Amino acid sequence: MRVNDKDYRTVWMEDGVVKLINQPLLPNTFEIYSCQNYRQTAEAIKTMIVRGAGAIGAAAGYAIAQAYLSDEDIQKAAQVIKNTRPTAQNLFYAVDKVLKAADKKEALSIAQQIADEDAQACKTIGEFGVPLLKDNAQILTHCNAGWLAFVDWGTALSPIYAAKRQGKKLFVFVDETRPRLQGARLTAWELSQEKIPHAVIADNAAGYYMKKQQIDLVITGADRIALNGDTANKIGTYEKAVLAKENNIPFYMAAPLSTIDFTCESGDAIPIEERDEKEVLEVRGVRLTPNQSRAKNPAFDVTPAHYIKGIITEKGIFKPDKIKQLAPQ
Amino acid sequence: MRVNDKDYRTVWMEDGVVKLINQPLLPNTFEIYSCQNYRQTAEAIKTMIVRGAGAIGAAAGYAIAQAYLSDEDIQKAAQVIKNTRPTAQNLFYAVDKVLKAADKKEALSIAQQIADEDAQACKTIGEFGVPLLKDNAQILTHCNAGWLAFVDWGTALSPIYAAKRQGKKLFVFVDETRPRLQGARLTAWELSQEKIPHAVIADNAAGYYMKKQQIDLVITGADRIALNGDTANKIGTYEKAVLAKENNIPFYMAAPLSTIDFTCESGDAIPIEERDEKEVLEVRGVRLTPNQSRAKNPAFDVTPAHYIKGIITEKGIFKPDKIKQLAPQ
Repeated sequence: MRVNDKDYRTVWMEDGVVKLINQPLLPNTFEIYSCQNYRQTAEAIKTMIVRGAGAIGAAAGYAIAQAYLSDEDIQKAAQVIKNTRPTAQNLFYAVDKVLKAADKKEALSIAQQIADEDAQACKTIGEFGVPLLKDNAQILTHCNAGWLAFVDWGTALSPIYAAKRQGKKLFVFVDETRPRLQGARLTAWELSQEKIPHAVIADNAAGYYMKKQQIDLVITGADRIALNGDTANKIGTYEKAVLAKENNIPFYMAAPLSTIDFTCESGDAIPIEERDEKEVLEVRGVRLTPNQSRAKNPAFDVTPAHYIKGIITEKGIFKPDKIKQLAPQ
Repeated sequence: MRVNDKDYRTVWMEDGVVKLINQPLLPNTFEIYSCQNYRQTAEAIKTMIVRGAGAIGAAAGYAIAQAYLSDEDIQKAAQVIKNTRPTAQNLFYAVDKVLKAADKKEALSIAQQIADEDAQACKTIGEFGVPLLKDNAQILTHCNAGWLAFVDWGTALSPIYAAKRQGKKLFVFVDETRPRLQGARLTAWELSQEKIPHAVIADNAAGYYMKKQQIDLVITGADRIALNGDTANKIGTYEKAVLAKENNIPFYMAAPLSTIDFTCESGDAIPIEERDEKEVLEVRGVRLTPNQSRAKNPAFDVTPAHYIKGIITEKGIFKPDKIKQLAPQ
């Protein structure tokens, strides 16, 4: 997608260096972060300089390729990279795929292919999703499942970009998405760049607008989809799904097939990352709470399949109970 | 209630001086603000050094008493005080009540009675609510309906304080309550002072803990209760009520009878204040979103009666459909 009149991906590789859009600096500053070796790339994943399922997957694939290029212990590198973020399925998928490479050239080629396939899958998700968006539709999204979370296009936002390019008028309600504010910071930034009308709202206000029937549909991304259609995504997604059902508003998730964990029977088996309580206790380094107060900070929740009207993938839109059929034969 | 192991009210009068806990300084600094005359007290109400229906009412009553004590023009003083916060019903009630005093002594006595009655109503709410809290109960609350919003004890938090004093072990999940963070700032501070174990959570995480059955009940305050039991409260309350119902968790509200609007048939008739978008776009003066992004900021939502298991008042716990019976004859 375009930033300041240039085309960018969120992550790419150049002469053995992994380049990332430095996401914690957005929306204030647009800057490219360079990782010279797999350890730096792993650290960038861990510290969320790159975040979002697809972008993490591509970065992890490139990181393994970096390990190949500099003749590192590949198995050790894989372990380091896999230990960065526990919930995103794409990370494990990418690492394991590049690990099968016979040599440096093949590792590079597989890593590049993972990134390209991610971008293409997201573009196709947009094409499948666009008929869901009527002209003048009002859409709620949570967190950031735009192109910053992938290599390009994004998932939840991809149908919105595609519809915009077809000339449809849309309005997007953007959950700010505490604690890390990916909605307020990243989704709002993407929509601003694409000149799509939107309003940021406190996460608390989504139900208010649903009850007033000002939201026609909800689309979010997905971090891991279990075989039964239960889906892990950013904390708060489950709340929006329950509220959408209560107000008869269709709730869609958008994700590439790589997000499906075919080894995972149900959402109960998806591990949920508990992040540093500081993300809740502080905003941008400013303490909000009393010094004695503690916080709890689960980063994801699981939305049971029965709240999900459909999952928009690069192979079409599927009801959650059909996910099982997509398993590789 | 206890602050640094000493007993305080949010507002009291001492030798003609109105003393207030300076709430905008919390939770960082605990400081008593002194108002030498009714003009200073009125200004403190206006600038929200004191906030919360019950606390505002008591401060307004004391302000009129100050006007009596210093032989001011009482009618003019009443006008100045009534002009501070146009929507707070308790303010008008308190001013008009003290205005009936025949002399200084009676003015002081009525003002004191208003404060004492508020504290007593809240204490009684605690006593009625305490049987709802089993030992080791885990409670979710939203916003601040604690003693800082009243003269003492509070509403939603009053049963928690009462149960604590009976030796019950409790744990409170505190919704941070964006955009104004009354949970993170004020409720967390109150609970810290009372040494009640608690964790602040992003508003997004409440559903996660409900689904895990880690929350035994939800208690919030109420800003206005309609005759049919529909209740307006801080934005996000509706979301928590829907999620509580979905997870079979009892959802209670706590409020004195003065919160019931007997002229209001249903929640549809309750006007919802839309506040400055800056409260969403910024936290403590730090911009979160891109400069081009706009926000929407409804301050309250309405929870339909059928989500509310009971309303805890100083006359007992009522099902929402019994509220109508409490109308003055």
